[in-house]
Amino acid sequence: MTDTPHTVRSYDEELDELRTLVSQMGGYAEAQIAGAVDALARRDAEAGLQVAAADLRLDEMEAEAEGQAISIIARRAPMADDLRELVAALKISAIIERIGDYAKNIGKRASSMAQAAPIQPVVIIPEMGRLVALMVKDALDSYVSRDAELAREVMERDTQVDDFYNSLFRSLLTYMMENPHHITPSAHLLFIAKNLERIGDHATNIAEMVHFLVTGEHLPDRPKADQTPLFSGERPEGD
Amino acid sequence: MTDTPHTVRSYDEELDELRTLVSQMGGYAEAQIAGAVDALARRDAEAGLQVAAADLRLDEMEAEAEGQAISIIARRAPMADDLRELVAALKISAIIERIGDYAKNIGKRASSMAQAAPIQPVVIIPEMGRLVALMVKDALDSYVSRDAELAREVMERDTQVDDFYNSLFRSLLTYMMENPHHITPSAHLLFIAKNLERIGDHATNIAEMVHFLVTGEHLPDRPKADQTPLFSGERPEGD
Repeated sequence: MTDTPHTVRSYDEELDELRTLVSQMGGYAEAQIAGAVDALARRDAEAGLQVAAADLRLDEMEAEAEGQAISIIARRAPMADDLRELVAALKISAIIERIGDYAKNIGKRASSMAQAAPIQPVVIIPEMGRLVALMVKDALDSYVSRDAELAREVMERDTQVDDFYNSLFRSLLTYMMENPHHITPSAHLLFIAKNLERIGDHATNIAEMVHFLVTGEHLPDRPKADQTPLFSGERPEGD
Repeated sequence: MTDTPHTVRSYDEELDELRTLVSQMGGYAEAQIAGAVDALARRDAEAGLQVAAADLRLDEMEAEAEGQAISIIARRAPMADDLRELVAALKISAIIERIGDYAKNIGKRASSMAQAAPIQPVVIIPEMGRLVALMVKDALDSYVSRDAELAREVMERDTQVDDFYNSLFRSLLTYMMENPHHITPSAHLLFIAKNLERIGDHATNIAEMVHFLVTGEHLPDRPKADQTPLFSGERPEGD
């Protein structure tokens, strides 16, 4: 899909084109997440590198979305409400681009880990990957269909992702303690698990933006994410 | 600083006000990074929690910057070049808000780790923190003063941060292998080191935007970041 400002289209058609592009970005990111965790599970180094290389397209699509949004604003001089919608499209496409970066990172780590001895906690990762990929899909569906209910439901699912992450974190630490040879691969799995947890946070942020766009209401902050055991049960946030 | 659209100001005055706010956000984020690594180094649980709580102000400032930018666009209907400048302000303030999230996370982990036995690699963290806090400062200075040279220099410094991170990663893994009791605190230091490395990436992204705003030139991608040892020397990106 290319930005074609010289064809004659209505303002609504232009907004629809931008929404469609942002939605396509979401579908692409979803496929990247699935491909990355699949490469990790199948220990397919080549597939992991292909996912990493394919991230470039997502960067191009984000630049395209930004170009479209700026072009619409410049030519249409929309009023504040429409501007907020266009700024939301900019922000959502930027979030999807970051989700793609996480998938790219998982793909690269998967490619490298394919050459090491398999370690057990890997088996939980694909399920966590499916969970966050679906959150990304539903968050973008709620954006396209202006579905505040679906958006709210996506936000609620983030706690499942956090539970996954917290149990995976605990099992990886135990695994490291069992055998020093587990430490390096487990450290990389810690980062992969954190990347997936962050993808869930980003999908939740998209859902929050959609919910606000549709209803004008900000929901109360959910209790946050990372409850990995430190020493006092403190909950780190925002990483 | 509040958005006061009803006072009579020139377009340039409004742009200056927005630039000043974004620059203040940068100074605030810089102080948050310094406060978080200081709390970690001094093992001051209370100071770590104060840094985490103070992140709220950065979120408010980002909302304020977005409101100002949208208000300027809505009332002034600027043409494409000015729009790109306003969109850059939006994007830079969003990046600073994320930098603040990393500092918040470090503050929370610092607070928790203050209660555990100190572990040696902690001593390298404050220097890495100073390095990235200065990158944030200089990236924002290059934004305010439209200094492409300073922006380019900030980008070059990112490799030092990556070197810090990669050596810290290696020493933390060794540290974990030496003693199982080191595994849990070291795992959290791995995330703190990664947070600082990501702050360096974000400061670099700001510098790249400034360089492009001032010169219209995109610089070639730098060889990336994380070269932590996996099994083949693969380089994960974007996490």
